[in-house]
Amino acid sequence: MTEQKNYHLKCTGAALDTVTQHSEAEDITLFGSCFCPFVQRVWIALEYLQIPYKYYEVDPYKKPADLLEVSPKGLVPGLKLHKYTPPRGLNESTVILEYFEDLAANTTKRSLLPADPYARALVRLQCDHISRSLVPTFYRFLQAQEESAQIEHGKEFRSGLETLVTLFERAESEIVQGGGAAGVGEQKALGAGLGLWLEGGNLSLSDVMVGPWIFRASNVLKHYRGFELPSGHKFEAWIARLFAHPAFKATCSTEELYLDSYERYAQNRPNTSQVANAINSGKPLP
Amino acid sequence: MTEQKNYHLKCTGAALDTVTQHSEAEDITLFGSCFCPFVQRVWIALEYLQIPYKYYEVDPYKKPADLLEVSPKGLVPGLKLHKYTPPRGLNESTVILEYFEDLAANTTKRSLLPADPYARALVRLQCDHISRSLVPTFYRFLQAQEESAQIEHGKEFRSGLETLVTLFERAESEIVQGGGAAGVGEQKALGAGLGLWLEGGNLSLSDVMVGPWIFRASNVLKHYRGFELPSGHKFEAWIARLFAHPAFKATCSTEELYLDSYERYAQNRPNTSQVANAINSGKPLP
Repeated sequence: MTEQKNYHLKCTGAALDTVTQHSEAEDITLFGSCFCPFVQRVWIALEYLQIPYKYYEVDPYKKPADLLEVSPKGLVPGLKLHKYTPPRGLNESTVILEYFEDLAANTTKRSLLPADPYARALVRLQCDHISRSLVPTFYRFLQAQEESAQIEHGKEFRSGLETLVTLFERAESEIVQGGGAAGVGEQKALGAGLGLWLEGGNLSLSDVMVGPWIFRASNVLKHYRGFELPSGHKFEAWIARLFAHPAFKATCSTEELYLDSYERYAQNRPNTSQVANAINSGKPLP
Repeated sequence: MTEQKNYHLKCTGAALDTVTQHSEAEDITLFGSCFCPFVQRVWIALEYLQIPYKYYEVDPYKKPADLLEVSPKGLVPGLKLHKYTPPRGLNESTVILEYFEDLAANTTKRSLLPADPYARALVRLQCDHISRSLVPTFYRFLQAQEESAQIEHGKEFRSGLETLVTLFERAESEIVQGGGAAGVGEQKALGAGLGLWLEGGNLSLSDVMVGPWIFRASNVLKHYRGFELPSGHKFEAWIARLFAHPAFKATCSTEELYLDSYERYAQNRPNTSQVANAINSGKPLP
């Protein structure tokens, strides 16, 4: 039996530089683990929304006491909010993302959502699909051991990506080409909030929510499952804009970190994580 | 074999009065089905936020073409938004709830969320637990046919309710009794946005998101599974405030409608719904 690879305990590459730049005390401490995509979500948001924070690496397999204080299930990401006495905690990546949106609305005035309520709803439809379908399917695919199950779940993951594209296209067609815009300038303004799918668009909540798994599809799923992301000009251009985005790049380690850390998922080893256990038992993600 | 009961096609009781009052054309048409709890969520929100709407009853087992136009999977609730040319559609109850929040912020100035970002996050933690854990567990419990499975899933549902109470208590203790309030007046103001769990509180997003299933636990689960909601003064007072709330009451039919309509779930009949199929196959809810 070849030696098993272990998960990493420290960021590498651009992510390590970012950690170094965020090692001083701030109102917010982000409890993160270098390979965790749920952490990367909220980390990208902090960078994009320009909210000051300190990054604090924890070993999620050890569940240190200070993590349990801010995240009752011992899951990363967790936040410790030092502006309160005593400090308060917050957990759940999607809840933290909304919290950052609300904070930024009151401070930096930056946002991951468009201003128009219907345009916001179309982005939230994308987020709903990502959370409830695409992310669990990623783990079903990666953890599948039988070849037939790998084929089945690989198809499901690809189909989930196609549905996401359908939702991106719907937002583009209804908002940008729809009857709402008074002219080309207004069309551009409306489109800007709809995410990187559109050329010239800003990072959106759905880009942030799905980005970490698209990245891991490009390295982990490719390496362990021979998966290739969909081809086609628009999809490839979206991925290129996403991977090149400063807020995204700043939170990415080098490929080796992901390949090593995800070997346990690809082998479906016992006690890989609460996420892995939920997938194996057909339960919702924790 | 005794005759099988069928689902209803028309609201009864208070809900029927509300339908009658909302039968004229408005900017928003709500595509609903009288027994559906996902519909009841957004219906309560429309009532509470005082957003004008027309209620339009559809048979969800027939998937009429006009429903498919606004909700691609043919699921209720769906919205048709007539202020756009051509009219636009929206689906997914949680996305619709956020859309109504955004609409009301620009019009009626009413809200289902507190103003403070951290208080909002604590309510969203409750919503996250409801969507990802409590609601799927309700169906696993109701659809279970073997006695051992009914006992197991009944315990899971009760445990899910206890976790919700923990999250309610956390919000109350951190926000109302926490260090943030300058005095009793401010404590009351902060508490008001945290939902009906607090005496004197307003209806919250989490009350709206869970209320329809609490109601169906009180009649459907009681009738078919002998389930009793948790006792205790605070829980009972919360339920009493929820069931008596004008926006909630206005969307409730009489008990017989729910008992009849849910018999197919309790018997786990084939083709009961996309929700029931997802539960039977261990997949996320559609």
